[in-house]
Amino acid sequence: MTMAKRDTYTPDSLLAVAVEVFNERGYDGTSMEHLSRAAGISKSSIYHHVRSKEELLRRAISRALDGLFGVLQEPGATEGRAIERLEYVTRREVEVLIAELPYVTLLLRVRGNTDTERWAMERRRDFDNEVAELLKAAAAEGDLRPDADIRLATRLLFGMINSIVEWYRPGRGSSASSEEVADAVVRTAFAGLRHEV
Amino acid sequence: MTMAKRDTYTPDSLLAVAVEVFNERGYDGTSMEHLSRAAGISKSSIYHHVRSKEELLRRAISRALDGLFGVLQEPGATEGRAIERLEYVTRREVEVLIAELPYVTLLLRVRGNTDTERWAMERRRDFDNEVAELLKAAAAEGDLRPDADIRLATRLLFGMINSIVEWYRPGRGSSASSEEVADAVVRTAFAGLRHEV
Repeated sequence: MTMAKRDTYTPDSLLAVAVEVFNERGYDGTSMEHLSRAAGISKSSIYHHVRSKEELLRRAISRALDGLFGVLQEPGATEGRAIERLEYVTRREVEVLIAELPYVTLLLRVRGNTDTERWAMERRRDFDNEVAELLKAAAAEGDLRPDADIRLATRLLFGMINSIVEWYRPGRGSSASSEEVADAVVRTAFAGLRHEV
Repeated sequence: MTMAKRDTYTPDSLLAVAVEVFNERGYDGTSMEHLSRAAGISKSSIYHHVRSKEELLRRAISRALDGLFGVLQEPGATEGRAIERLEYVTRREVEVLIAELPYVTLLLRVRGNTDTERWAMERRRDFDNEVAELLKAAAAEGDLRPDADIRLATRLLFGMINSIVEWYRPGRGSSASSEEVADAVVRTAFAGLRHEV
């Protein structure tokens, strides 16, 4: 046990520590004791900030969801042809995912039996459905390849986007910027890798 | 504790049970006791088949790797233009992933500190590198979009393929066949979703 340091946490900075521990040990595998050790403050100091581990999870997931759903309200996501909105949303989702990497990572990994975990999974499905609707609209407007299966295409698009949490590490010398990754995703998903001459 | 059943396992059928438990609980979180309960035979019966939990992991990972690396030896992967080989490998990897779903799932989830886990991660990197070489060759032959970043493109291609283990469930009414999924991946990754008119 390390000496407890003076509690100078804000709600946000404490949340950042908790999310790091959740991502490393899994939410289920994390105890208040683990959080106390990682933060270097006593459990009672943590309880001064939050009522429970589940509240920390809810706040972290909310932050990820606010970012992701926020994109759907932006003008680029609501005005114009569906295919343009879809490309806009794809690009912005990648940017949000990278900007909020630990929070979105947590959202994508959560699967469990508490109310908060079920709510997180449901909101994630809601989000996927909104994007699937955009794909449907783009298909209806004739801008999606006619042989594309909407359900599969939605899965593969999210597969590509969500995989970023597995390999993107900010600040490493060789890693691409958020814009470069967003560009690569949009181009790969919509234009494809093959160069037609 | 349930009544132990008579041990009628073959190496393969015992491995199938073990892989299911590994995928559900995580390799680290699985004890021989868990395996014994899931298989319905005693621990000493399991030790009759294998020396250790790690041996089960090694066999399971080998099965996944044999399938994936096997594809790279097929004529479609070794003859012709690189872009055709790349599309062939992509299609066949999806098929192998679906045919060996629990084994490949385990391979993709393994990260840890035993020799076998490190070996699995290294072999996975070797595999990714071989596919990255194919992308490089396709770029050199002018068949990859000139603005494609090989490193990012490789990551995104694997992101799309590997995400299949997260959502594909065989035998469910609405789920696509292995060929349909493979087609969708190849078309999305190489031709893109956008319909150019």
